[in-house]
Amino acid sequence: MAVQAVLFDTFGTVVDWRTGIAAAVAELTGTVDPVAFAAAWRARYQPSMEPIRAGRRPFVRLTDLHRENLAATLAEFGWEPAEAERLNRAWERLPPWPDSVEGLRIIRQHRLIGPLSNGDTALLARMAEHAGLPWDVVLGSDVTRRYKPHPEAYTRAAAFLDLPPSAVMLVAAHNDDLAAARAAGLATGFVPRPTEHGPDQRTDLTATADWDVVAADLVELAGRLQENRAL
Amino acid sequence: MAVQAVLFDTFGTVVDWRTGIAAAVAELTGTVDPVAFAAAWRARYQPSMEPIRAGRRPFVRLTDLHRENLAATLAEFGWEPAEAERLNRAWERLPPWPDSVEGLRIIRQHRLIGPLSNGDTALLARMAEHAGLPWDVVLGSDVTRRYKPHPEAYTRAAAFLDLPPSAVMLVAAHNDDLAAARAAGLATGFVPRPTEHGPDQRTDLTATADWDVVAADLVELAGRLQENRAL
Repeated sequence: MAVQAVLFDTFGTVVDWRTGIAAAVAELTGTVDPVAFAAAWRARYQPSMEPIRAGRRPFVRLTDLHRENLAATLAEFGWEPAEAERLNRAWERLPPWPDSVEGLRIIRQHRLIGPLSNGDTALLARMAEHAGLPWDVVLGSDVTRRYKPHPEAYTRAAAFLDLPPSAVMLVAAHNDDLAAARAAGLATGFVPRPTEHGPDQRTDLTATADWDVVAADLVELAGRLQENRAL
Repeated sequence: MAVQAVLFDTFGTVVDWRTGIAAAVAELTGTVDPVAFAAAWRARYQPSMEPIRAGRRPFVRLTDLHRENLAATLAEFGWEPAEAERLNRAWERLPPWPDSVEGLRIIRQHRLIGPLSNGDTALLARMAEHAGLPWDVVLGSDVTRRYKPHPEAYTRAAAFLDLPPSAVMLVAAHNDDLAAARAAGLATGFVPRPTEHGPDQRTDLTATADWDVVAADLVELAGRLQENRAL
């Protein structure tokens, strides 16, 4: 069965969290380095999901983890803004990379598209509204109740679409996410986002395995999918 | 808090199941009355969810209930088509009412929109693709794991959008669905679909309570929502 649904990692792959969060920080303060703050807040992202992946903590939505991580980051920077809750909502207003919306629109002509993100449904739906991401379906991690790279984060997303994992492709800018998706039976597509972490990024600059599709951006990836309907 | 998300009953309110199912039956046979078959198949819809609502049967997706109900209806009509599975997929290809797509597009300009249906996510996503329904989010009953009119079918849909029930409106052509939504704390909008059940329909021809909005169709309802932003 060819790929019927193409699902996308979101933070970093479809939207530019670093620029978006730094801009929201800059709006609120002149004393904290916005880019350093964005990086520090995001650095708490993976560790905060780890106890949930390991089953040591019950499932908590990403928006709530973001809030906890924000409190810790604010303490680290010695900053106490009145607008902390508004700042936490900045994840809903992240800017898309320049090729994202066009690429998604092309892919959507022939396949079902949606995020496959650790973001929760409400966050992803509001992000789509702000950024103009034309998803067909938005199933957040609060629907699968699994954080990537847990295998069921991938297989449950396919099951909600009534598709076998092999009929679903994950597109991501992160090789480890694709490795987990492949292990769960999904098809895989890689696009590099060489400035996700800023100008000195060293990781995920290229594909580190023979993913099913590798493209320079989402518009090129859309073209590859159109050329290769067998995929 | 004003209504931020407008969710729609789907079968009967947004799409015309009777015409769609009858057309799919007519494609396959010249011996069975397509309209009578559609009505008989749909007549098994509510009873088939009842054991699940009451907790006597574990949750089963609507597509699987449709398949069970199809088998029973085929037996009733003494018809054994080879294409039964294809016929079951007809629920994914139901035609929208003439005003549905335009109404949804207008409402979507200012509010988040999605189905609040007993249909499952895969069914609703494919229906949207075929009918051009521009949903922001598609959360099927397999996500809430409750069949309307169970109160949690409504409250869990609001929770997935991170909204209180009062910030969500259900729009339906069925007074009983709206009564359950109101009891669960949602705002309510009624549009009549006087030929949902055919030319002799006697039920749901008018609003039977003071729903928050009553309109002739979804385009008129969109206008009411635009006029009244406090709603």
